[in-house]
Amino acid sequence: MSQKIRTAIEPTREENYAEWYQQVIKAADLAENSDVRGCMVIKPWGYAIWENIQRILDGMFRETGHKNAYFPIFIPKSYFEKEAEHVEGFAKECAIVTHSRLEDDGKGGLKVAGELTEPYIVRPTSETIIGESFSRWVNSYRDLPLLINQWANIVRWELRTRLFLRTAEFLWQEGHTVHETYEDAMDETMKMLDVYAEFAEKYLAIPVIKGEKTEGERFPGAVATYCIEAMMQDRKALQSGTSHFLGQNFAKSSNIKFQNRAGEVQYAYTTSWGVSTRLIGALIMTHSDDNGLVLPPKVAPSHAVIIPIYKNEEERENIMTFVKEIQHALKAISFDGNPIRLEIDDRDMTSSEKGWYWIKKGIPIRMEIGPRDLQNRSVFMGRRDKDAKDKQTLNFEQVITSLAAILEDIQDNIYHKAVELRKTYTQNIDSKEDFYKFFTPKNAEQPEIHAGFANSHWCEDTACEETIKNDLKVTIRCIPINAEPEEGKCICCGKESKRRVIFAKSY
Amino acid sequence: MSQKIRTAIEPTREENYAEWYQQVIKAADLAENSDVRGCMVIKPWGYAIWENIQRILDGMFRETGHKNAYFPIFIPKSYFEKEAEHVEGFAKECAIVTHSRLEDDGKGGLKVAGELTEPYIVRPTSETIIGESFSRWVNSYRDLPLLINQWANIVRWELRTRLFLRTAEFLWQEGHTVHETYEDAMDETMKMLDVYAEFAEKYLAIPVIKGEKTEGERFPGAVATYCIEAMMQDRKALQSGTSHFLGQNFAKSSNIKFQNRAGEVQYAYTTSWGVSTRLIGALIMTHSDDNGLVLPPKVAPSHAVIIPIYKNEEERENIMTFVKEIQHALKAISFDGNPIRLEIDDRDMTSSEKGWYWIKKGIPIRMEIGPRDLQNRSVFMGRRDKDAKDKQTLNFEQVITSLAAILEDIQDNIYHKAVELRKTYTQNIDSKEDFYKFFTPKNAEQPEIHAGFANSHWCEDTACEETIKNDLKVTIRCIPINAEPEEGKCICCGKESKRRVIFAKSY
Repeated sequence: MSQKIRTAIEPTREENYAEWYQQVIKAADLAENSDVRGCMVIKPWGYAIWENIQRILDGMFRETGHKNAYFPIFIPKSYFEKEAEHVEGFAKECAIVTHSRLEDDGKGGLKVAGELTEPYIVRPTSETIIGESFSRWVNSYRDLPLLINQWANIVRWELRTRLFLRTAEFLWQEGHTVHETYEDAMDETMKMLDVYAEFAEKYLAIPVIKGEKTEGERFPGAVATYCIEAMMQDRKALQSGTSHFLGQNFAKSSNIKFQNRAGEVQYAYTTSWGVSTRLIGALIMTHSDDNGLVLPPKVAPSHAVIIPIYKNEEERENIMTFVKEIQHALKAISFDGNPIRLEIDDRDMTSSEKGWYWIKKGIPIRMEIGPRDLQNRSVFMGRRDKDAKDKQTLNFEQVITSLAAILEDIQDNIYHKAVELRKTYTQNIDSKEDFYKFFTPKNAEQPEIHAGFANSHWCEDTACEETIKNDLKVTIRCIPINAEPEEGKCICCGKESKRRVIFAKSY
Repeated sequence: MSQKIRTAIEPTREENYAEWYQQVIKAADLAENSDVRGCMVIKPWGYAIWENIQRILDGMFRETGHKNAYFPIFIPKSYFEKEAEHVEGFAKECAIVTHSRLEDDGKGGLKVAGELTEPYIVRPTSETIIGESFSRWVNSYRDLPLLINQWANIVRWELRTRLFLRTAEFLWQEGHTVHETYEDAMDETMKMLDVYAEFAEKYLAIPVIKGEKTEGERFPGAVATYCIEAMMQDRKALQSGTSHFLGQNFAKSSNIKFQNRAGEVQYAYTTSWGVSTRLIGALIMTHSDDNGLVLPPKVAPSHAVIIPIYKNEEERENIMTFVKEIQHALKAISFDGNPIRLEIDDRDMTSSEKGWYWIKKGIPIRMEIGPRDLQNRSVFMGRRDKDAKDKQTLNFEQVITSLAAILEDIQDNIYHKAVELRKTYTQNIDSKEDFYKFFTPKNAEQPEIHAGFANSHWCEDTACEETIKNDLKVTIRCIPINAEPEEGKCICCGKESKRRVIFAKSY
């Protein structure tokens, strides 16, 4: 193998985390920026990850009784204005359609024309437009619960954008449900939070903390917002999914009423919940290393690649016959309920180039087959969760019988690595001094690598939350749901506190 | 059964075809209009049809080597202006984003603010925005062919809208490909036309005619447009899919160049092709009857429903045990490569109400099970392609062993009905007088039911096409690809013609 540069991705995570992230995306050919302000192009390898996410989540939504539907992309300004907090939350960054025609401007160009009587907002979220339909669909308690999900594109005119993490247009799903009672709606809110947590941990191999947002971090218009929070490799938190208990707020603004079991007309209780293409950003930053993307096998576009190595056409023919034999035998094998997704890379490049190409793309398993392997009916296998040079020889039968188990092992392994990272960089901190020290960068050369999560007491006063945010750019990521009640003193003001919350820098 | 009104859908097709169409959609709960001008809400039963269409077509696109990706919804005005014919075709009906913020208007409302330096068009089709990416992705002949598909929402500010057939926002897929040579691009254009035709006939059970559009009906900017055309039950034609050979037109406007095998830099050849939620409109108008929707089993959200009939809780328990037994046994059965999709309707309604509910929704098979059926371990089965009263008794084993074959038979049966309809209402017409008579409504009370397709000679002169369009509102739907060359005289001017074309009224 030729002399290789230090790592396949430059800079490394330690050198420049933000730039490393961009370079991983570029090297894996996941997505790119477009000329349209803040909008990304999701390339085939990135889009295939999203399709796997969609397929799996969609199945989980169905299992929990939800049905898909589709609502208009445009929201009339008047709908948008109905819920005061809601409009305040989204009005500053939205795309507004005002005209319906382009006309000759008399100077060889085109000018906008056909002004609309009412401007339309390109949906930044669909509570108000879906609420309008729901107000007609719901009449009696017999119509409830109404459990709807939508897969859609969303536009938020964010100022600072970053591929997958924050883009002006992104893809997501948004669940919208209507219930008879407070309890039913709250149960739904928590059920979907559990679905998100299970999906993140089991499929994306990302350990998450389930918790409630503080008042200041709530979805605009919600009574309560629940979230899953994950630690990235720079030790910052990434909110990876949210489930909102909307109480009767949106039912009132959208007029969703029904005749209850006592024969009275009352407002319903609603929820909404969503995850987006941001999950791909979470996945990249949880697992990737200085050689590029590392994909959890369960959502990888392809599970394995076979790289034939030969010097002449005769060798090629013999090796490709063996490759086809493996391909055929693997058709009978499934992993996580799906057929093995196999690539065969017979391009005109050196095997080293191909190896690094697939390492950077994060494919879980690489299998090289040269003339000697052919003689032994074996493959030389490398795993993406191990060192690039750490390869082992497996014979034909072993490949067929163990491939699914190896994929499962990779999935487990990267999950546990992420759990370990989070464990290493999470601390119970009980003194204000330690807390401030924890969040003050130690190394001026690595300002982007942070200390981690502080598990500290908080008195539930917004003022303390604000002080810490202003002093340290640290926020309460969530009040963990599963935390044990514990007496303590607020990390900021020293007043009494009933439980610890998660403080961290965040995306 | 109680005295039933004449048909489940009123008016009937003969009475008022356009209204019948709306009522079928309403009765099947497929979609509804929204307050947003021309935009529809696709409800779960309608959206599930679209998901089946997506799943099947997506598989066919993959089989033919295409990969999915996602591009920005917004197109900068400057991109849009690049291809002159293209912009002319879409500029008159588009949604234009001009602002990025809502501000307090000082009167308790909100006003638009944050004017953009360049307006963005919400994509009416994506040739120009995708072309911009392709110009960067394509450098060498080694990068070709580039075969990309996108599933997306599209906005065209149509003046007259109609659910599924023509809406301001619709869902579609758009394929965009780049090739080395004229021939390669033309092969792709025809291959995807074949994919569409196969899909329409095999899955939607809609017979189609593959043909080329005349110059006047071409996609704006295309060198040639090919289409599939279907006959609806009012004998009008519905264009159900198009495949465009774009030559080098868009490669030139988007600057898609590559180094060819001779080492020279040249413009590439591109294609684009699409089908949309309009296919659901085609499906409704091809198969439905005066009792409502009729679904082709291969795209039906559910294949069959079981309706338990009982008078008390004891009967209910016994019957539901049998229902569960059938449900369990059917899990081992597949139809068209997928599991049987079964509904169990145990709602608190009469069995007659339930039966009509499912007839109107177009479910292919209904199975009633009452106490007597339970004794015989049998079901009373009705097929949606037969008269509502035409039911037969099948025992448990027959249900399990024959259900897939019955679904196949329904699929074939409705396809052949549609073929027969088209045959009945298609005529070779060779005299101008007959032609004009053919397209003149015979019955003033049924102005919406037309005569059908005229297979007539045309001299290829646009003037003749225009004359007929102005006189009769009849257009050339396509120049059939599979037509035999035949000498004849133009139906309009009498000049020499080399082949027949399809004339019809159309959607």
